[in-house]
Amino acid sequence: MEGIRLSMSILLGIQVLLIILGACFLQYGKDADAKVLIDKDTESVKNKYPMFQDVHVMIFIGFGFLMTFLKRYGFSSLGFSFLLTSVVVQWAIFCRGIFHLEENGKIHLNMLSLVNADIAAASVLISMGAVLGRTTPIQLVIMGLVETLLFSVNEHILIEYFKIADMGGSLIVHVFGAYFGLAVSLVLKPPKGSGPESSSYTSDLFAMIGTLFLWVFWPSFNGALAEGDNQLRAVLNTYLALASCCVTAYSVSTILSEHKKFDMVHIQNASLAGGVAVGAAADLMLHPYGALLVGAIAGVISVAGYRYLQPILLEKIKLHDTCGVHNLHGLPGLFAGFVAALVSYQASESEYGMFLYSIFPARAPLRHSQEFQSLLSKIDVDPGTNRTAFNQACFQIVAIPCTLAFSIIGGVITGTIINLTAPATGSVPEDSFFEDALHWEIPDSNNYESAEKRVAEKQDSTIVKIHEPSETKVAEEKC
Amino acid sequence: MEGIRLSMSILLGIQVLLIILGACFLQYGKDADAKVLIDKDTESVKNKYPMFQDVHVMIFIGFGFLMTFLKRYGFSSLGFSFLLTSVVVQWAIFCRGIFHLEENGKIHLNMLSLVNADIAAASVLISMGAVLGRTTPIQLVIMGLVETLLFSVNEHILIEYFKIADMGGSLIVHVFGAYFGLAVSLVLKPPKGSGPESSSYTSDLFAMIGTLFLWVFWPSFNGALAEGDNQLRAVLNTYLALASCCVTAYSVSTILSEHKKFDMVHIQNASLAGGVAVGAAADLMLHPYGALLVGAIAGVISVAGYRYLQPILLEKIKLHDTCGVHNLHGLPGLFAGFVAALVSYQASESEYGMFLYSIFPARAPLRHSQEFQSLLSKIDVDPGTNRTAFNQACFQIVAIPCTLAFSIIGGVITGTIINLTAPATGSVPEDSFFEDALHWEIPDSNNYESAEKRVAEKQDSTIVKIHEPSETKVAEEKC
Amino acid sequence: MEGIRLSMSILLGIQVLLIILGACFLQYGKDADAKVLIDKDTESVKNKYPMFQDVHVMIFIGFGFLMTFLKRYGFSSLGFSFLLTSVVVQWAIFCRGIFHLEENGKIHLNMLSLVNADIAAASVLISMGAVLGRTTPIQLVIMGLVETLLFSVNEHILIEYFKIADMGGSLIVHVFGAYFGLAVSLVLKPPKGSGPESSSYTSDLFAMIGTLFLWVFWPSFNGALAEGDNQLRAVLNTYLALASCCVTAYSVSTILSEHKKFDMVHIQNASLAGGVAVGAAADLMLHPYGALLVGAIAGVISVAGYRYLQPILLEKIKLHDTCGVHNLHGLPGLFAGFVAALVSYQASESEYGMFLYSIFPARAPLRHSQEFQSLLSKIDVDPGTNRTAFNQACFQIVAIPCTLAFSIIGGVITGTIINLTAPATGSVPEDSFFEDALHWEIPDSNNYESAEKRVAEKQDSTIVKIHEPSETKVAEEKC
Repeated sequence: MEGIRLSMSILLGIQVLLIILGACFLQYGKDADAKVLIDKDTESVKNKYPMFQDVHVMIFIGFGFLMTFLKRYGFSSLGFSFLLTSVVVQWAIFCRGIFHLEENGKIHLNMLSLVNADIAAASVLISMGAVLGRTTPIQLVIMGLVETLLFSVNEHILIEYFKIADMGGSLIVHVFGAYFGLAVSLVLKPPKGSGPESSSYTSDLFAMIGTLFLWVFWPSFNGALAEGDNQLRAVLNTYLALASCCVTAYSVSTILSEHKKFDMVHIQNASLAGGVAVGAAADLMLHPYGALLVGAIAGVISVAGYRYLQPILLEKIKLHDTCGVHNLHGLPGLFAGFVAALVSYQASESEYGMFLYSIFPARAPLRHSQEFQSLLSKIDVDPGTNRTAFNQACFQIVAIPCTLAFSIIGGVITGTIINLTAPATGSVPEDSFFEDALHWEIPDSNNYESAEKRVAEKQDSTIVKIHEPSETKVAEEKC
Repeated sequence: MEGIRLSMSILLGIQVLLIILGACFLQYGKDADAKVLIDKDTESVKNKYPMFQDVHVMIFIGFGFLMTFLKRYGFSSLGFSFLLTSVVVQWAIFCRGIFHLEENGKIHLNMLSLVNADIAAASVLISMGAVLGRTTPIQLVIMGLVETLLFSVNEHILIEYFKIADMGGSLIVHVFGAYFGLAVSLVLKPPKGSGPESSSYTSDLFAMIGTLFLWVFWPSFNGALAEGDNQLRAVLNTYLALASCCVTAYSVSTILSEHKKFDMVHIQNASLAGGVAVGAAADLMLHPYGALLVGAIAGVISVAGYRYLQPILLEKIKLHDTCGVHNLHGLPGLFAGFVAALVSYQASESEYGMFLYSIFPARAPLRHSQEFQSLLSKIDVDPGTNRTAFNQACFQIVAIPCTLAFSIIGGVITGTIINLTAPATGSVPEDSFFEDALHWEIPDSNNYESAEKRVAEKQDSTIVKIHEPSETKVAEEKC
Repeated sequence: MEGIRLSMSILLGIQVLLIILGACFLQYGKDADAKVLIDKDTESVKNKYPMFQDVHVMIFIGFGFLMTFLKRYGFSSLGFSFLLTSVVVQWAIFCRGIFHLEENGKIHLNMLSLVNADIAAASVLISMGAVLGRTTPIQLVIMGLVETLLFSVNEHILIEYFKIADMGGSLIVHVFGAYFGLAVSLVLKPPKGSGPESSSYTSDLFAMIGTLFLWVFWPSFNGALAEGDNQLRAVLNTYLALASCCVTAYSVSTILSEHKKFDMVHIQNASLAGGVAVGAAADLMLHPYGALLVGAIAGVISVAGYRYLQPILLEKIKLHDTCGVHNLHGLPGLFAGFVAALVSYQASESEYGMFLYSIFPARAPLRHSQEFQSLLSKIDVDPGTNRTAFNQACFQIVAIPCTLAFSIIGGVITGTIINLTAPATGSVPEDSFFEDALHWEIPDSNNYESAEKRVAEKQDSTIVKIHEPSETKVAEEKC
């Protein structure tokens, strides 16, 4: 493996740099400062910790295990996602922090910093899914560093300038991550044959650990940044959308199947599409039936994407998408963008009361208007730009091409950087795509003694044929 | 596979129906309504969310993985439980909701709705354990729909009319689910031989994921619906009962074993019986030693059930119980019912203070009595029926045959429905019991190219015998 | 297997004894007493439950699965750690309780009791890692009972007499557990060859479940006993230290590797060292860059330990350490002790404000001093001994040899007890080290019918050679 020591030394250098950056810019937030007396009611660890931990499980365990479906790439799926995320969460604190510097030029750390860092990492892990099996770890890290930066810029534009609603990050996280990864994938060398790019019975069971933890904790992902009734709505809507999405994904998977059977790829992935599709409107007054409907449609879209669109994209434009992130995050994310636009268009004070102006801050009246003064007497909000429901819906729509542009252009540039640096840092040779053995010490591979012993036993057993299978059986059970 | 497309179309229809029902009846609760200013102290997401998520993990991950112990039925165990639960939680919201309609005829959704929906699903998953491997997914869904309805009726009777204490749902969930499933199992065609109805080394390890998550989060299951000190008591009692149950289950498993070894079936299941057995009295003043004692006895009962009772039931009345739910949920649940009756009989104002009347609402004085007025000045409770401790214990006992009747009769009817609809929706042929291949695309089965390649390699290696085992070994490791 | 029934009967006796002890000494705490009106703000279940459950997952699932890396010892790793922990948590409640008896001579149970019991179990599980594969379950239980007692004494001395800061238990839990286990290991018979002491592809994936759950929930472990801003600091510091530790562990693993590849042993273990290393100073003003730095160094220390120190210790002093607990818990724990001493030395009122005296209680002024009276007007603390920062640092340092002495002497004694009682309770014969089959019914081993059937199929398929591999393949997939 060429360049692995060099690339790992670069990684060590990156970590040293992150520590230096930390020394220059990071500071405990007020909640975490020993000197400051904390306010029990706004204590961030009490309010945010349980949902943070759910998200944390999703990022490190959910995404990691979801990618273990490849039969010879489990070590890399788990190991590289673990490494990549550890780098990205540190870097994300800085990328987001520069937009929210304190007066003394420092970044203040609190529970929200960690939640946001984890959410940024989700985007990078989605991109990783698109190129899974075809990159070295340092190439993933390069991708992660560039992506996190662009992610933060896009997020900042969507939230601070467009002031869109996207509580669950359907656009900010899922669409961005999916199309960024797909663009990188397009620039990278595609695999020729399918090679070991398939699952085994056991690897599919490991992948279900990922699916189920993502599914179970998704309400926390969509609700982690919300407060009060918005948070409860996000939880309820996500729960309902996921349940109905799971049902339609199963149905459509079989109905569309040639052999009239369930396909594990659909179950592992499409059953999650409801969480993506409901994300952008998760805290809006989508109503329970709306959540059920959005989830049900997402299940159909996602399965259809896996069944029909993915093979076409592979054949026509050589777009290889290992985990099918386009069908799980891309298409349902776009759908979510339109749903949020529709729901925003229907949002009125009669339905949201005064809280309309905290959910859609741009719809609040102008600072010096009389309406704003009378609003302030009822609720504590920032002044807005008096945006209409129609304009809000337009901004929700405009956010989609903006995110697509950022992610696709960013992904193409990143893929090009990866290709250009490959001679120095090394790349994965085509015949080692989807193979753990390239980067990992595989158990027993050096254990010649034991192998030879088994050879001897095997030869003996060949003579007394009746014993052979039971010997094989034991070996199988041990695995 | 006959009828699979039809049955999956029916499933799609069920989901459409659930969405329509949602449009007619579901509404955000006050906590989730944007217009309503929420009260920070009673905010349901703060108070209920962490325990809800624990229960959610138990339902979707715990039960799912617990059933993966069958060596060729892992996809179905995880996949069908996932699908079934997704249908049932939606349906459960309506089944419970009709008993708690708001004035405008709507069902209000909040955190408790989700907790209760998950708990109802637990009952269905227990029943699924009894018939595991012998049904199609649509048959499970039919079972789930009928069962959830009857579950809600039985729960309503026990709580609202009998006013029994059953915080952890030992009767409401475990006994009901177990005997319902056993009754369905009795009506269905029993398997002839054992076929692939056994575990492998790997499948047993996957099943331990289920066992351990159920074990760890069981205190949340028993405490999720409680409040204040009742909740803490439920947590403490369940923790203690599970710990002592685990110890006795291990001991007795070996002592009763022919080969003086531990049996994975006991470890995976009997170690959980303490959670069932302590459930009905979980929030009562069972005292720490009482919890330890109940757990210890439950471990013994459960292992003995697996060791002695289950083979007898199979032989004498052809009662097949794939997961042994009778030993994990049935017998310990019945035991729990008697424990709760005993503890209720001993409950007095000297031990519970005024809170006796919130824990046992029927023991509160009559509405217009003087005692009730003087009670109201100390604590906010509803009027009761002045029930004595002895009467309360009687109601606790009567709840047992009531639950048995509902579950067994309901299960027999459901099994008959399943048999009658089998010609239309299809059923599992006897030689495909406990086989994933009937319903799932099994990895590599179409991958002839790769298989043929291996054949060629194998033939080569047969000549140079020394290499064969290492090739086999690598393949084994990959799996 | 000699003595297994005897030893399991002893275990049953231990459980009976624990129930009797429970009847004599355990009582619900005020929070859990039905009669007592609870204070909503200090309600222990609200404040402690989410972090308790994270720790609970770490103890029962994290540690359990981390030890499944051995290819033929998965049942025992999961099964024995489950049993051992169930005994130890009960016993730990008494061991800690005797130091905190209520006036009526009873031990009061609340959420903290459970958190502390789980933390004590962590120490025992670390020791189990050192001797993994070489003991019977009853030998582990004997070890656990003695260790928990000594653990509690050492903890009491360090907290109540030395009054050291060790929020995450780096010394109290990790150093103690590691050196105790190593001492036991030294006294036990070491394995001769490596035998089946290695991993398989699948067993390594199972072990990653353990690694990732430990990693994700470690901030809860280090913060579970803290309050307010201390708790948030513990969370932030642990999160940062773990992320940077993971990055350096990966880098150094490859850089030091002969084959320039990642080593699963390092990834599974060394990536966690940051959590140990930051533990003792987790709630101190370590500053974000300090946490990053400590984590990064810990990753290097741990990998170097696995790579260089462990083989030397094995060769020179026959110290066998199955899980490498010395490298994950021992060395990083010692490092943590020095970090905490350094940070304590720099702690001043200008950085911590008045809270200096709640974090370092010995630094508070003497009871009758004027300083104490003026302090009391600002914050509610106990009187201290007017300790200087330098003296505090000295006590932090002195705690290290104290812990080492307790653990090593205790471990040697325990190992001797285990050896002496071996003739009665049985021990593991050398050729069964790291073998599940000694203690467990292994699936299919009795299933001769099915095995013979496969033999027949195999013989047929041998004739038509072209079919053989696909048949083998299917079997492999099923496993």
